[in-house]
Amino acid sequence: MTEARKASRRPGAGRRAGESGTREAILDAARREFGARGYDGATIRGIAAAAGVNPALVHHFYGAKEQLFAAAMRLPVVPSQVLSAVMAAERERLGDDFVNHIGEALVRGLLGIWEAPEPRSAFLGLIRSAVTSERSAAMLREFVTGTILATLMQVARPADADDRTSRYRASLVATQVIGLGFARYVLQLKPLATASTEDLVAAIGPALQRYLTGDLGPTT
Amino acid sequence: MTEARKASRRPGAGRRAGESGTREAILDAARREFGARGYDGATIRGIAAAAGVNPALVHHFYGAKEQLFAAAMRLPVVPSQVLSAVMAAERERLGDDFVNHIGEALVRGLLGIWEAPEPRSAFLGLIRSAVTSERSAAMLREFVTGTILATLMQVARPADADDRTSRYRASLVATQVIGLGFARYVLQLKPLATASTEDLVAAIGPALQRYLTGDLGPTT
Repeated sequence: MTEARKASRRPGAGRRAGESGTREAILDAARREFGARGYDGATIRGIAAAAGVNPALVHHFYGAKEQLFAAAMRLPVVPSQVLSAVMAAERERLGDDFVNHIGEALVRGLLGIWEAPEPRSAFLGLIRSAVTSERSAAMLREFVTGTILATLMQVARPADADDRTSRYRASLVATQVIGLGFARYVLQLKPLATASTEDLVAAIGPALQRYLTGDLGPTT
Repeated sequence: MTEARKASRRPGAGRRAGESGTREAILDAARREFGARGYDGATIRGIAAAAGVNPALVHHFYGAKEQLFAAAMRLPVVPSQVLSAVMAAERERLGDDFVNHIGEALVRGLLGIWEAPEPRSAFLGLIRSAVTSERSAAMLREFVTGTILATLMQVARPADADDRTSRYRASLVATQVIGLGFARYVLQLKPLATASTEDLVAAIGPALQRYLTGDLGPTT
């Protein structure tokens, strides 16, 4: 790690520390760049420069920006990939009826991820960082908006929706989803914390469905 | 402050430091006791003993435990009092129709409180403490359950509801409410963060109404 950090200050020297050293140097640089410039502002090119390696090597090790962010923040999954996979599986299972059950699928998919300790603590780590630093909050906002909510908008967007409305619907979903995670895993409010997945699917799924495709009142 | 702390170690001597010194000593003791024993475990009697004053004096200065907690945590309002007042005003305004609009009233009332900087930062401070320490999370859970959710259960409880169901409904409301505050004020997700109060009342009110009085599925 120290070797890698030293290496990262000499452009082109990163590889000498071995592959794992280079990987660490890239993740260190990514954390610094995401922290300093936010999710939108940081670039693969800038992170590569900060790590003293070729951008192609960053792509080779980590793929696109979201994957690199997930690795740098030690997220055990790439959120929008998991979301896409869960939605594809539910679409397969439900057929034409899928569009009326996206909310339930979301709750079921989320709880399926969160019940495992690693993704849960990664989620809680992001919440913690956002609440303790404005810079982290901005980074998380850009990340959530640019990846998770963008994916959600693609999955659930009604044909006639404009961009602003889609973003508004997706952000309403985010309020309920974040609050569910916080109340269940941080506050551990009872009996919410001990309710079964299917209870919560039945209770919260329709609320998400309405946010995504329902009538949200006269003014929006 | 230092004088008050010294005084607090000599039972009965608190008043010598003057009223503001005694008040500070009580709040210091309250923070220590709530932190060590949680909201449920701490008592006015124990806090008085820790501050070296008579329990009657604590009651005289701060009233009941919830008020003392609000003062110790620097909350600018006593949550369940504000909640009761907002609900009473809406009940007055809407008459018999109130029961169908509790969700909307809740969103309107909450945003009315949160749009002011002081209550908002107090709310965010509680969220921050809960996310950084398990002990604080337990304290906040007990406080939310014992005061805010208990009040909500009284206001919105259907005649035939049992205790567990009422608690479940109230905790579902908590998920949406906490997530709304987090997404709007911490993450500042757009366009949620810039949506008007009435937009959010129309969008989120019905979700809360369903949690309080609607059909939550076959299994609950």
